[in-house]
Amino acid sequence: MTDEAAPQRLVDLAHALADAARPVAKRYFRQPLDIIEKADESPVTIADREIETEMRALIEAHFPEHGIIGEEHGAVRADADIVWVLDPIDGTQAFITGMPIFGTLIAACRDGVPIVGIIDQPILEERWVGAAGRPTTFQGAAARTSGCEAPERATLYATHPSMFEAIDRRADFDRLAGAVRRTRFGGDCYAYGLLACGWADLVVEAALQPYDFCALAPIVEGAGGAVSDWRGEPLTIRSDGTLVAAATPALNVAARGLLERG
Amino acid sequence: MTDEAAPQRLVDLAHALADAARPVAKRYFRQPLDIIEKADESPVTIADREIETEMRALIEAHFPEHGIIGEEHGAVRADADIVWVLDPIDGTQAFITGMPIFGTLIAACRDGVPIVGIIDQPILEERWVGAAGRPTTFQGAAARTSGCEAPERATLYATHPSMFEAIDRRADFDRLAGAVRRTRFGGDCYAYGLLACGWADLVVEAALQPYDFCALAPIVEGAGGAVSDWRGEPLTIRSDGTLVAAATPALNVAARGLLERG
Repeated sequence: MTDEAAPQRLVDLAHALADAARPVAKRYFRQPLDIIEKADESPVTIADREIETEMRALIEAHFPEHGIIGEEHGAVRADADIVWVLDPIDGTQAFITGMPIFGTLIAACRDGVPIVGIIDQPILEERWVGAAGRPTTFQGAAARTSGCEAPERATLYATHPSMFEAIDRRADFDRLAGAVRRTRFGGDCYAYGLLACGWADLVVEAALQPYDFCALAPIVEGAGGAVSDWRGEPLTIRSDGTLVAAATPALNVAARGLLERG
Repeated sequence: MTDEAAPQRLVDLAHALADAARPVAKRYFRQPLDIIEKADESPVTIADREIETEMRALIEAHFPEHGIIGEEHGAVRADADIVWVLDPIDGTQAFITGMPIFGTLIAACRDGVPIVGIIDQPILEERWVGAAGRPTTFQGAAARTSGCEAPERATLYATHPSMFEAIDRRADFDRLAGAVRRTRFGGDCYAYGLLACGWADLVVEAALQPYDFCALAPIVEGAGGAVSDWRGEPLTIRSDGTLVAAATPALNVAARGLLERG
């Protein structure tokens, strides 16, 4: 994130995109779906495509000069100053199994750096909003992380152990999991919202795509947390897909130390 | 489950217990809690104890001759013909991390066999009700499993991989996980509700206590599913804490075969 505050017009449009996504997600949630397996075997749904189409149309209508990168429909103007990064339904496996902890992820990046991020849970009507230079909000009120600094007191979330096998780092994750107070799987993007509100302390993941992580950084950082890749580099649209999101900078450093002590 | 239908008065009281639990769970959810670590390190909350106290008082008021086994306050009249088995907050780790997929579990057992079961999610106000001789309901409407019979097409849920390490069967679970279409962790009791509604196909767990599993059997069976321990024995209050809940009897058999092929 940068020190320069995010323009209000970007925050406003991000809200409008999330507002547009909600009714579509609600309409298809827990309905029989024509699930199509993509080549990488992550399931996508009709809802996924419809939401992204609606969000892209809104961006084109308001800021035709902005770029867009979406999970479903690819990239346009990816070298624009402002690029929107969209995941209409993050946690598609949660979605298709009827678990209301998936989310619509919306990010605006300036020169590749996420400056606005939204996690929206359409079924529970819960929304986290992060923007550079402002406090993160949950349901409109300021959100703060727990302030936890010590791994041994931390609750760690990760979506699935297989994401660490994908980058051949399962043993490193297991070392971290063995050092924290408790580990929970199955959080998807919702876990980052829990972290921003102080209900979880640490989310460590890997094998993510930009549309999976760009929205998360402003939310966690604006709540007092610290987000980086596993090497400690700040997240940008070009990050390598590893992620350490922590309640505090100290916990981020400590978690990365445990991941590296191989 | 038995062929003899569950008496309506037991179903009515089970609803009343769940009704009593909801406002207490809501009051404490996502609030700072004085979390006490029990000897076995599972976290319990003030909410847990308050809910069980209220539920026990209701049972004593209506059926003072019935037995009660609860997670928090132990057993009374455990040899009565009808014994209530209560878990005020199943998924305490979900609860304390702000994840609204924990549940209040309420079971009535006759001669040790669960004949009434409720899973209630207080925050989402979602309720599954199973009773011997009747169709399972979700939000008052009949629920049916997916009908899935083939492991390779099944979505499998389990709360945490560590439960299989606790019984030294992690490799067996991993073999099953490798054979199904997809595996999700973090379901807690909510996963059994998803199974009863056809959104998941298989839940396999271990190291459970009677208050964790008694309520689940009537719900899954009344929706067309098949529940047993890992050896195929029907669930009773004396079961060994292993559980295979499947959308169909064929899937239950196939899953147990994969668990045993060591």
